[in-house]
Amino acid sequence: MTTNEKALQLHKEWNGKITTEAKCHVNSREDLALAYTPGVAEPCKVIARDREAAYQYTIKSNTIAVVSDGSAVLGLGNIGPYAAMPVMEGKAVLFKEFGNVNAFPICLDTQDTEEIIKTVVQIAPAFGGINLEDISAPRCFEIESRLKELLDIPVFHDDQHGTAIVVLAGIINAMKVTGRNAETSRVVVNGAGSAGIAITKLLLRYGFKHITMCDINGIISKDSPNLNWMQQSMTEVTNLEQLTGTLADALRGADIFVGVSAPNIVSAEMVASMNKDAILFAMANPVPEIMPDAAKAAGAKVVGTGRSDFPNQVNNVVAFPGIFKGALEGRARQITEEMKLAAALALAGLVSDEELSEDFILPEAFDPRAAEVVAEAVKRHI
Amino acid sequence: MTTNEKALQLHKEWNGKITTEAKCHVNSREDLALAYTPGVAEPCKVIARDREAAYQYTIKSNTIAVVSDGSAVLGLGNIGPYAAMPVMEGKAVLFKEFGNVNAFPICLDTQDTEEIIKTVVQIAPAFGGINLEDISAPRCFEIESRLKELLDIPVFHDDQHGTAIVVLAGIINAMKVTGRNAETSRVVVNGAGSAGIAITKLLLRYGFKHITMCDINGIISKDSPNLNWMQQSMTEVTNLEQLTGTLADALRGADIFVGVSAPNIVSAEMVASMNKDAILFAMANPVPEIMPDAAKAAGAKVVGTGRSDFPNQVNNVVAFPGIFKGALEGRARQITEEMKLAAALALAGLVSDEELSEDFILPEAFDPRAAEVVAEAVKRHI
Repeated sequence: MTTNEKALQLHKEWNGKITTEAKCHVNSREDLALAYTPGVAEPCKVIARDREAAYQYTIKSNTIAVVSDGSAVLGLGNIGPYAAMPVMEGKAVLFKEFGNVNAFPICLDTQDTEEIIKTVVQIAPAFGGINLEDISAPRCFEIESRLKELLDIPVFHDDQHGTAIVVLAGIINAMKVTGRNAETSRVVVNGAGSAGIAITKLLLRYGFKHITMCDINGIISKDSPNLNWMQQSMTEVTNLEQLTGTLADALRGADIFVGVSAPNIVSAEMVASMNKDAILFAMANPVPEIMPDAAKAAGAKVVGTGRSDFPNQVNNVVAFPGIFKGALEGRARQITEEMKLAAALALAGLVSDEELSEDFILPEAFDPRAAEVVAEAVKRHI
Repeated sequence: MTTNEKALQLHKEWNGKITTEAKCHVNSREDLALAYTPGVAEPCKVIARDREAAYQYTIKSNTIAVVSDGSAVLGLGNIGPYAAMPVMEGKAVLFKEFGNVNAFPICLDTQDTEEIIKTVVQIAPAFGGINLEDISAPRCFEIESRLKELLDIPVFHDDQHGTAIVVLAGIINAMKVTGRNAETSRVVVNGAGSAGIAITKLLLRYGFKHITMCDINGIISKDSPNLNWMQQSMTEVTNLEQLTGTLADALRGADIFVGVSAPNIVSAEMVASMNKDAILFAMANPVPEIMPDAAKAAGAKVVGTGRSDFPNQVNNVVAFPGIFKGALEGRARQITEEMKLAAALALAGLVSDEELSEDFILPEAFDPRAAEVVAEAVKRHI
């Protein structure tokens, strides 16, 4: 049986991957009087006087919503809220397993930006945070920024920021391996969707100066047609020379490639045209932009992918559980840029000098320290 | 320490009364590939082709939302969604403990009828049922009926129908004790909010012919001022003689009193004016419309209250967990009137002829058979 066949069968056996469980059991009239009426009126009255007390007396203190509209699910595209549920349940499982954060999947039966914003605001009282997931660009940018304004709990779009944090952590260590620095390295980010844009922004924030974004039409510049508003705004801070051309043109003389795009679109020739000991994050799933062996044969020094069967897996699971664990424990109101940078540095720091090599630039997906150090990094910046 | 003080302290210790737990644990790369990417794409694809498959592969099969806007919480009134959370969490606990139904509290930060309807429709994909709770009348009637039209999952307002089911069960048995029947018994329902109206409707459906509703202004008739649309519609099917007067007038010669109103508003004289061996359900909480001892001294035969420290406690907990357990197990699309009647009869039937007495007309709140027989009753009528 293949992994996929086994996964389907297991999903049927699980019949839902999460449950809700009672912390307080109700086996007697006294139990009922304490957990429900009449005793429950007491915490209600306290919260009615002081809304902040919800963090003391309700699940808000350690529960987040995993919210999706099913518009951009994995590589499957716009499959809608029902079909997105297994992914959101899976995400809820990972939040619990890695961060001990209670997470509940909310799959929205609308893809209207305004409706999504309104609905998330309206269901927010129960939750201490909102993890947005698999919402297509550019809607995801507006939804996230508006929700951040409207809510007093952290809102985090993992496809953007989780990915960006882990990529930055990997790049920091890959630069150590190859003797590079952020200021002088030339970066090409291929893919101008939610992940590509978030990665670019975090790299700029970290100190990179020379980033060129590409999409399916090649290098993105101010003159590129059909850019959405967010892509347009990125042309103000990337491709400062306003070059035009293909991905191959962009890669010539580049130091770092970050791909969140499509299978097999980077050739050995393109890698060979990059600077010596190039760094490639080829994260198209399941088939990367170029296979690691081919990239290395063409001269690359460090290659990361989204796959677990090659070294240097770039996996958000080392970031998002710790982000919300820290935000909830410290009762952060927002996930700030400083927190994301600190999280990336903390993840990079988990790889010791002795471990660090071209084939080991990131902590393993199952490193139990990852959520801890990310949570601490977040809490230091509240 | 009083029960209330202890309840407050325990709520702080619990810091939320429910958790989300993973059914599948993720301890290895293989686990991750099965519960999350890439394996999770398989159930997603199946559901994308056939939405009904969500019942096989997701939590929808056994998970409901406990939805409130905090507008009519217990006896506390309109305390809002944050302060309502402890009650909704408590309800989720009871669903799990008594019915093994997973339930998640959704407290809405709006009290606009249209917004509530829209939001519940939009979050419905994850859920197999919607339990409405503590939403004020008459908004609750429209919200429930519109949601029933819009959704293909069961929607049930427990304050209305859970209460009505248990009251009818109790009345069925109380009539056995006192040698009455539905057709000839005269009933007075005091309180014309969500519970009073739902009780009246279910009693009519069961076969009662003579029901008079009262509110704070006395007997409700077609000429009563300030009735809402639902109360107006009730004047078509109650108080057929179109009497006017006070609650005392209504009770003269009545057989059954059902109070969902206010403390101490029924006097010994009023009870004495009822027919011999009267039946009283005095369910104002925590202080009933008349205390059981006083009612009995004045001639009542069977007295039920909402309290656990007197015989014949009328407690919804014997109904709602089984209602959703049955609806989910049988994949009912609606909770119908037939299901509610069957549930009431099933609950009444749990009291054996040997047990049945003026002080034992309803199964105990902790009777583990209650959820079972109610679920079976629901399933027989799908």
